[in-house]
Order: sequence, then structure tokens, then C-alpha cells
Amino acid sequence: MAGPAPFSSSPDDTHTEMLEATYTALQKHGYADLTIQRIGEEFPKSKSLIYQHYDGKDELLVALLEFLHEQFKDDVPDEGFADAGEHLEILLDHALPASLDSERAAFSRAMTELRAQAPHDAAFREQFTRTDRFFRKHISDIVRDGMEQDIFQEVDPDRTATFVATIIHGTRNKRMTTDDEARTAAVRQELEEYVQTHLLTGDDQW
Amino acid sequence: MAGPAPFSSSPDDTHTEMLEATYTALQKHGYADLTIQRIGEEFPKSKSLIYQHYDGKDELLVALLEFLHEQFKDDVPDEGFADAGEHLEILLDHALPASLDSERAAFSRAMTELRAQAPHDAAFREQFTRTDRFFRKHISDIVRDGMEQDIFQEVDPDRTATFVATIIHGTRNKRMTTDDEARTAAVRQELEEYVQTHLLTGDDQW
Repeated sequence: MAGPAPFSSSPDDTHTEMLEATYTALQKHGYADLTIQRIGEEFPKSKSLIYQHYDGKDELLVALLEFLHEQFKDDVPDEGFADAGEHLEILLDHALPASLDSERAAFSRAMTELRAQAPHDAAFREQFTRTDRFFRKHISDIVRDGMEQDIFQEVDPDRTATFVATIIHGTRNKRMTTDDEARTAAVRQELEEYVQTHLLTGDDQW
Repeated sequence: MAGPAPFSSSPDDTHTEMLEATYTALQKHGYADLTIQRIGEEFPKSKSLIYQHYDGKDELLVALLEFLHEQFKDDVPDEGFADAGEHLEILLDHALPASLDSERAAFSRAMTELRAQAPHDAAFREQFTRTDRFFRKHISDIVRDGMEQDIFQEVDPDRTATFVATIIHGTRNKRMTTDDEARTAAVRQELEEYVQTHLLTGDDQW
């Protein structure tokens, strides 16, 4: 869920440069063909620095996920909305855009591939668990805000947030792993109808 | 979405034995560490037979996905239900069980890993596109049946099916890639409420 260009500003320290090299090499070679050597090829300083800090590609990739998690937390907009309804709408716009530019598509591809390490690697699973929990909490906070503002019905905020986050995740994963990207719009429509009928009070129209 | 034990009956031909060896080796080693040699170690006949038929592990894995797709099509129950409501309920029971036995968990892990090849490999993407389309069509047929039986409201069957299939996929993927398996029950509850209010007519209770 982090932004499309995690290293858009120039890295300001060696550690971040290593993670940028890891991200670049992952995009070029994919997880299976990624090696520390190939990460080194993208790193502007002495490759021995990487070996001093990390024991293997998985350690670097987990550090990359930690970095992206912190960035996601910093970047996610959480104020400046007229109300919780607008907040949720903008979140859905951001999470399920009609089309992905090449940077966001590359980012999503990389995350899809790294997530596939999670079933058999606890360190990866821990990272995705943390990011998923953060995002779910973020959505449940919006739902609670909406209930306080009397614009959302009285629902179970955690259950609603789990549902919405799962739909977003499923859509994003299918978008990257099938040729049916166009179905994204159908899910989005149905999700908005769900918000309309399950969440919004009265006749509010999005 | 295929059953948990794709090779539970003994393979009856060499080709199927190769695919079973591929499946076993994938579960043991994971995608990144899978090699034709390791597939050969699980194959009871001469390894040279594998080399005669396949050029590499990806070709074998795509053939495995094709095999699983056909098996899924054969296995998915599509008759013997009192009505479309019961049909949908049993489908959700099957797709989102409260807990996974070890065979189903192993199967889901393997599928999660293979799906991660899809973003950068068109042959994998084609397989998952086909299976996802089949499953979506299966759900939309249930929705159409329910509308004909006057137990479902007049909805867009394809959009509804896309939504339900996406929720199932997102839940299954999160279940394998995070430590929050328990959230499956929350999604299931919310999905049943969605079916109750968006799909069922009248006061039918599941």
C-alpha cells in the first residue's frame, strides 16, 4: 500500500541506498533470480558494505519491507478531509485506481512477489502482517470517525475494516496476476454500493 | 480453488506422475529453490522422461496448473442443491472454511507461490486468468439461478460474482501470507451479511 515511487527523493544515507539497490534489482530480476551480487550491481558504493551488513538477499528484502512500511505509515493521508465519507472515498480512489502507471504497476508486481515468500518464511509474514494490521486499523479508525460524525451506521468497525481491506487486497492481487485488470472497476462499483447501503446513513450519495 | 489433495488417487499415467512429482517437489523446496533435478527426485521412473517432455521447471509448473484447472472444473459441485441459496452457502463453506487441514494449507501455499510468478510470466498469468474466469462464471451462474428462482434480488450477476470471487481470493491470500488467519471468520460473517442484504429477497435467513 506504500506509494508508487518509494525512492523518488534521493536516498540520503548508505542504508537507504542499499534498500534502493535491492528494490531496483528485485524489479529487474524477480525474486527467484535475485542475488546479493545483482543487488551489488545497483549499489553505487563498495559492494563489501552490503556484505558487512546483510547475510543474504532475504535479509535485505525484509529490511526493504520494513522501510516501505515506515514510509507507508508516514505517507497515508489521515487529515484534511471534510468527513469520514470523503476520507474513505479518497482512500478507495488511491487503493483501486482505474489504471496504474508504470511505477505503481512495478511496485505492485514487486509486492506481489515478495508476499509469496510469506507462506514459508516467518520474517516476510511478519512484515505483511504488520502492514495489513496497520491498514486495517486505519480503515477502522475512519469507520469509527464516521459513526461519531453520525454519517455512518452503527457497524462493527473492525469487521467492516477487515472486509474492505480484504476486498482491496484481493483486487490488487488479481490485477497483477491475471489479464482481467478491467474487473477492478466492477469490484470498485460493488464496493461503493456496499458502502452506500451498509455504511452511510440516510440518503447520502457519493 | 481445486481440492486439497490433487493427487489423492494414484496417478495412472506417466504424464500425471510427472505432475505429481512437480507438485511434491514444489511443496518441499518452494518455487525459488525448485529445479528439474529435484522434480526428478520425486519421480518414480527414469528422469530422462522428464527432460524429453519439458524444457524447464516453469513448463512443468504451467502443465501442473493446467492439470489442476481441469480437476477443479470436474470437482466443483454444481448440482444436487435445494436452491441457489444453498448452493452459494456450500460454496462459501468450501472456499472459506474456519480452519485448513495440512493438505489444504499446503495446496494454498503452493498456489500462492505460483500466482506470484504471474505478474512477470504470461504463461502463468494465462492459467490464473482462466481459473479465475471459470470460478467467476460459476458464481454468476449461481446468481442467475437464484434470480430465476426468485430467491435472489435482481442484481448484475457478473459484478456480484466478481465481488464475491475477489473477496474469497483476498481472504485466502491473506490467510496464507499473514499471521491473522483468524480474520477469515470476520470476512465470512460480513460476506454473509452482504448476501443477506444485497442478494436474498424477503426475510430468508441463512
